[in-house]
Amino acid sequence: MFPKTLSLQEALALVLERVKPLVQTETLPVFKSLCRVLAREVVAPQDLPGFDRSGMDGFAVRAADTYGAGEARPVPLKLAGRIEMGQDASKLPALSAGEAVGISTGGMLPPGADAVVILEETELQGERLLVLKPVAPGGSVIRADEDFKRGEVVLRVGHCLRPQDLGALLAVGITEVEAFARLQVGILSTGDELVPADQPVSPGRVRDINSAALAAQVSQLGMQPTAYGIIPDQRQQLAQATSHALAECDAVLISGGSSVGVRDATVQVLEDLGEVLLHGIRIAPGKPTIFALCGDKPVFGLPGNPVSSIVVFEKVVSPALQKRSGRARLGRHHPQVQAVLSKNVPSARGRDDFVRIKLERRDGSLYAEPIYAHSNNISSLSKADGMLAIPAGVEGYAKGEPVTVELW
Amino acid sequence: MFPKTLSLQEALALVLERVKPLVQTETLPVFKSLCRVLAREVVAPQDLPGFDRSGMDGFAVRAADTYGAGEARPVPLKLAGRIEMGQDASKLPALSAGEAVGISTGGMLPPGADAVVILEETELQGERLLVLKPVAPGGSVIRADEDFKRGEVVLRVGHCLRPQDLGALLAVGITEVEAFARLQVGILSTGDELVPADQPVSPGRVRDINSAALAAQVSQLGMQPTAYGIIPDQRQQLAQATSHALAECDAVLISGGSSVGVRDATVQVLEDLGEVLLHGIRIAPGKPTIFALCGDKPVFGLPGNPVSSIVVFEKVVSPALQKRSGRARLGRHHPQVQAVLSKNVPSARGRDDFVRIKLERRDGSLYAEPIYAHSNNISSLSKADGMLAIPAGVEGYAKGEPVTVELW
Repeated sequence: MFPKTLSLQEALALVLERVKPLVQTETLPVFKSLCRVLAREVVAPQDLPGFDRSGMDGFAVRAADTYGAGEARPVPLKLAGRIEMGQDASKLPALSAGEAVGISTGGMLPPGADAVVILEETELQGERLLVLKPVAPGGSVIRADEDFKRGEVVLRVGHCLRPQDLGALLAVGITEVEAFARLQVGILSTGDELVPADQPVSPGRVRDINSAALAAQVSQLGMQPTAYGIIPDQRQQLAQATSHALAECDAVLISGGSSVGVRDATVQVLEDLGEVLLHGIRIAPGKPTIFALCGDKPVFGLPGNPVSSIVVFEKVVSPALQKRSGRARLGRHHPQVQAVLSKNVPSARGRDDFVRIKLERRDGSLYAEPIYAHSNNISSLSKADGMLAIPAGVEGYAKGEPVTVELW
Repeated sequence: MFPKTLSLQEALALVLERVKPLVQTETLPVFKSLCRVLAREVVAPQDLPGFDRSGMDGFAVRAADTYGAGEARPVPLKLAGRIEMGQDASKLPALSAGEAVGISTGGMLPPGADAVVILEETELQGERLLVLKPVAPGGSVIRADEDFKRGEVVLRVGHCLRPQDLGALLAVGITEVEAFARLQVGILSTGDELVPADQPVSPGRVRDINSAALAAQVSQLGMQPTAYGIIPDQRQQLAQATSHALAECDAVLISGGSSVGVRDATVQVLEDLGEVLLHGIRIAPGKPTIFALCGDKPVFGLPGNPVSSIVVFEKVVSPALQKRSGRARLGRHHPQVQAVLSKNVPSARGRDDFVRIKLERRDGSLYAEPIYAHSNNISSLSKADGMLAIPAGVEGYAKGEPVTVELW
């Protein structure tokens, strides 16, 4: 009945092949564009810096005047003033042969000057500057188009803007960019045992924490989560709520009730609303994951156990949402540390395992201590510093082995 | 005159020793506490899940009733109903000897039941359930206090809240936390050559991009930047602006004009307002960095060159601000990738070098291509995917060597 289960690698390939970037874009100020994804290529409208500048503190000169200079035979030049920072030196008379003007790093070269002798290679004698070392044309000069050339591509479509990119855009005078719209991600929780996280629980019931954890994970990606609350375990109500979320969002996450019946309901609803492409990933925790497309909108059915839900988000949903948000290259890799395994960690062949790890520094070494607990157990993940990934082809790692721990 | 220059390692040690966490705390909803730092230890006010639950789909039983069961000699039990998800099973009559009730993963065990036989190890014959394998007391049961025990520490002071931590807090019914106030970071730019980033430039002048890049870096840490604009290169005006920023913020960054005179002014102003503890780090780019304390508020004088400013922020300022924000352990490590160096990268002994790297995939390998440019050149950092750190004791790396690239 259901599409076959896939390995994590196959599932990721399928998801990334089928999920398409959203279409909506918006214009926004560069100041507010951190972590946003460019929807239109940006080209430099001007050279940068736009004028020849000094790259060092020193003296602007005609390079030819310094040829032959040496410690033993300094070349004397006439000091003809000083360029102030920010001064438009193009208005100055051209530097005559045998003249030099003081200049600071970043100062504009006057007409006629084609090099800068750095401070350390000169000596001042009153009005006379002694040059101790020759400089070639262009020496210690930042050319007018050295940073950006007018017409050069500054950033391409799909680029996720970092602090240095904001700097590059502003530097060439671009104050607005066209970016993909901020991804709207709807989050539904199903399960008759759930109560909203801010309400008291009675025996037999537990608080819905997946909505909040998923919303936080979505926020970490710079996207906008909308929680639609807890939907009763009934096909019709789930269909209604999912349609509602699909109408308002670019992608939808359904954190599933854990009973078989609810899982079935999610699959049936998604088959009615679109196409179920995947049901089951050979990953632990997180096996009962569902991936569907409703029109161009990806919908994920996530396991109800909080640890499973968080793991599947990081490993499968996050790449999908990043692709959907227009990113050309996936980001948000987990930082990694090397540690020594403090216990044997067995793993079933044929599935990707993610083992919760507590890091402990003892005797100058960093140890990775596996935390074993039911995937329902949220404390185990809150006490963990990260995850040890055990690929499908590996049967586990032995105590004492060096392992790479992803920090979560 | 000035405190001596330090190595990057020494500078970091000094900065982290002298910077103290801020004192102000605030109470905020857990829903809005992602990336915030706990200022008060949180203790579980209740057991979690709070009742014995099934860890699997199956049948709640008295374990003793299943002893001796086997494929060849199944033990018959009377099926006495089913526990619904979310049902308060404590109201049910206690399970009698020889009885079983259907239960889903997460369902509440009824009185008398002490184990769950999983679905796969049973067979149904009308009202009769055949158990094919014995189960021990506690088998497939999540104990009432297995996740959290009442009174147990959930999270400690200084913990930076992750999605799973929000889940853990909400799970035990905690909806508000006391967190350190969001760090307020003031940003000043100095330099007579600078114009605001959203204004046209005339020859000799350049746009101030450090304010925006530093603000973005501060935002990435979850802190609140306030830009105070461009301050003229004059001691009195700089002193006034710095005092103003210090009065309003928990830490201040002064992105320096690049001329010697301005650097001197920054040091003099900071000596008047507090204590200059460091002037010069053996790092490239970024050498002319200043660190001062004004009362308990850290102030950094950063190089005016944008690449230097961004590097020093990541390597020195970010750890300091994280400590100031109350974090017990520093986070925001850069993710790393392994790549093959495509060129020789020389480096001066005695200083930490950070080389801009463009990553390129060719013939199935990932290559690290160094980008050499003046530290004034922002395009070089925008074109870069990351940085290659060359520690002070290393004289560089050779073409073809495998290196670790930090993604920036």
